[in-house]
Amino acid sequence: MNHSSSELPRIVVIGGGFAGINVVKALKNTAVEVDLVDKRNYHLFQPLLYQVATGELDATNIAVPIRKILWKQKNARVALGEVTNINFDKKLVQFDGGELDYDYLVIATGAQQSYFGHDEFQSFAPGLKSIDDAQEIRRRLFLAFEEAEWEADEEARRKILTFVIVGGGPTGVELAGAIKEVASETLPKEFRNIDKNSSRVILVDGGPRLVGPMPEDLSKRAKDVLEKMGVEIQLNVHVNDVNEDGVVVGEETIKAENVFWAAGVQGQDLAKTIDAEIDRGSHIIVGPDLSIPGHPKVFVVGDAAHATDAKTGKPVPGLAQGAIQTGRFVAQIIKAEIEGNAPSQRPEFSYYDKGSMAMIGRGNAIAAIGKIHYGGFLGWVSWNLLHVMFLIGFRNRFKVMMDWLWNYMFRTRRSRLITGDPEVHIKKLYSEHDKRKE
Amino acid sequence: MNHSSSELPRIVVIGGGFAGINVVKALKNTAVEVDLVDKRNYHLFQPLLYQVATGELDATNIAVPIRKILWKQKNARVALGEVTNINFDKKLVQFDGGELDYDYLVIATGAQQSYFGHDEFQSFAPGLKSIDDAQEIRRRLFLAFEEAEWEADEEARRKILTFVIVGGGPTGVELAGAIKEVASETLPKEFRNIDKNSSRVILVDGGPRLVGPMPEDLSKRAKDVLEKMGVEIQLNVHVNDVNEDGVVVGEETIKAENVFWAAGVQGQDLAKTIDAEIDRGSHIIVGPDLSIPGHPKVFVVGDAAHATDAKTGKPVPGLAQGAIQTGRFVAQIIKAEIEGNAPSQRPEFSYYDKGSMAMIGRGNAIAAIGKIHYGGFLGWVSWNLLHVMFLIGFRNRFKVMMDWLWNYMFRTRRSRLITGDPEVHIKKLYSEHDKRKE
Repeated sequence: MNHSSSELPRIVVIGGGFAGINVVKALKNTAVEVDLVDKRNYHLFQPLLYQVATGELDATNIAVPIRKILWKQKNARVALGEVTNINFDKKLVQFDGGELDYDYLVIATGAQQSYFGHDEFQSFAPGLKSIDDAQEIRRRLFLAFEEAEWEADEEARRKILTFVIVGGGPTGVELAGAIKEVASETLPKEFRNIDKNSSRVILVDGGPRLVGPMPEDLSKRAKDVLEKMGVEIQLNVHVNDVNEDGVVVGEETIKAENVFWAAGVQGQDLAKTIDAEIDRGSHIIVGPDLSIPGHPKVFVVGDAAHATDAKTGKPVPGLAQGAIQTGRFVAQIIKAEIEGNAPSQRPEFSYYDKGSMAMIGRGNAIAAIGKIHYGGFLGWVSWNLLHVMFLIGFRNRFKVMMDWLWNYMFRTRRSRLITGDPEVHIKKLYSEHDKRKE
Repeated sequence: MNHSSSELPRIVVIGGGFAGINVVKALKNTAVEVDLVDKRNYHLFQPLLYQVATGELDATNIAVPIRKILWKQKNARVALGEVTNINFDKKLVQFDGGELDYDYLVIATGAQQSYFGHDEFQSFAPGLKSIDDAQEIRRRLFLAFEEAEWEADEEARRKILTFVIVGGGPTGVELAGAIKEVASETLPKEFRNIDKNSSRVILVDGGPRLVGPMPEDLSKRAKDVLEKMGVEIQLNVHVNDVNEDGVVVGEETIKAENVFWAAGVQGQDLAKTIDAEIDRGSHIIVGPDLSIPGHPKVFVVGDAAHATDAKTGKPVPGLAQGAIQTGRFVAQIIKAEIEGNAPSQRPEFSYYDKGSMAMIGRGNAIAAIGKIHYGGFLGWVSWNLLHVMFLIGFRNRFKVMMDWLWNYMFRTRRSRLITGDPEVHIKKLYSEHDKRKE
């Protein structure tokens, strides 16, 4: 159903991530009706997700109900639901709560984890895209130490305490650093049979260097710092298999009970169902105005889009900044046309690189802002300030800052609950033991 | 396996709730080795669980890893695992991580939800005993409003927004009050099609009054306040069925999509497997020294026990205070005997009632301390102070106080994430719609 009855132009936005939220907010003072549909009820600050996975932050501090963000915006409505079909001819979006007609459609469905055609890896190597993913990684991470504490067999113990992170981009680097910190600083004091050298953290990547999109000197810096922390790094290697034994890297099998996947993203499956060209990673290819060629009133923004910078000819990177900028750009086009502009007057999108950063470990991060590259403690301070600034809500900012300060001072991690049905994790432990006894 | 090799007396404690933790902590300076086994890795502050279920607090603020509580206590070890067998003859506890022998055993396994022989109610009416339970109730609660926002059929909408709480004890009263607050104050401003009168909250109980264990004038007070808030209360009624239509109360069916169960508790199933007498609710019957008759070195404490106050002859109530007091009492006996006392010198347990309290709604709680009964804002302040005081850790105390203050001032609820696989909740929505269309 469609509760609306006004005569205002109707905008439907699919997805409430950085891109979608910014489209809606930028239309605040325009005479339109906006509907935002998302399959989750929260907007997620993805850059901090790895900190939920490693027990540093609470999920609620980095995720805000979408309704809470938009409740004051009178021209916006929110629907929880998964879009099942888009009909370009009828200008209709169908989702499992009903259907919505539109004058303009903005697809901001983001990206999902990609296993490059090996979806069978997923159950052995969870990715990190949602709160539930983060809680699953957290569960596996902290459960491993519980298991190791009571495991007598040395070989089994080594396997339990070996963590492999596949993918050396910012997420992989941040995850590896955080897991190493937890393993060597936070947990040993609470366990009787685990010391700071009990566990191995291995970061593997197919490319020649870490954090590929960042400048080369910072890649080297990240590698040096991680190695000094004790993270083992394997570059230029290919992951051939992930199974219950561990990871097959090249010809070698690394025995590991826990493998985490941070190797790549792809567009949502919805992209394949619409009349639009997609790239190999299911991103929808858009023109310079970010609309789908042949469908001028359908835009794609953020990670869902394969967009090209009109000035440099380079692809727009799949980062928060890209999502925010493409979202606002499209909102401006819609606004201008509703206020009388002709479609021929549309500008072309070009990306403004504000810089990039990655956290490596306690008191250490790398940053590239224009030609300035730096790291260490100053990088760490910048990283923290920047990320807090972009969080939504004063209360979340305050709480996250407090948590960081506390964790930094006391080398602790507070949010370490192993949730989920205990039957599941304990039965898993149990069957592992049984297998070993056989 | 059993890593221990010392000659010290060995104490095994099963369960890390109020009772178990207090046994272990009270043995801190005794020359013993203590093993605490729990199927979860966290100690839970149960009295605040309903606030996690209603989006007021984060789970991590009321749950602390057991290891974190005990890491400084050198004579204590912690194991994550479910106890599968207790052998009184061999003095052996088997759990799924190994086995532990003991000189003294303390069973502190707590209670689980009881459906009074109707376990088929459970999937329609989740209870509230663990973090996962709380997150499930939170998911259902906030999902209902998302669903109602887009539901055109009036009858279906009424069913979606009818919440029935079964059980008028402290948990039921607190849950009903909190849900009513969320429904009439927090959410309406964020939804376009829901106002403060859209939803019904119904509290049903089989007895003649609410919060049975508290004095009668406070029961009346609780009823008056809840009714003024708009909660519908049905007393002296029997729940005959809970199914997908709702609840059958007496002969009447209340159509409700969400039913929450706060009606009773029973001991764990483990109690049935050991050589001990149990009551109808599977609580283990213990003697005046809290040991199992015939097994003087096996004690039962907290909610797992059916204990009788030696002075009054009344049963020891299943409250946090009862758990703490029985735990400390047993630790003192063990300590005294290790230091030379004879078993014949054991004291008899008697319960010291420090008073009881229940939260009703925003700025309103009831309290009975000795002969003093009061409520209203003063009750609310006492309730908050008392509960914060008993939380573990300065940081949790600070955060919880900040959250309460903020929620009170801005009438908001921050922790409202609908987590879990979106496939599950969206498919549920979808199939409901399909059914209605048929």
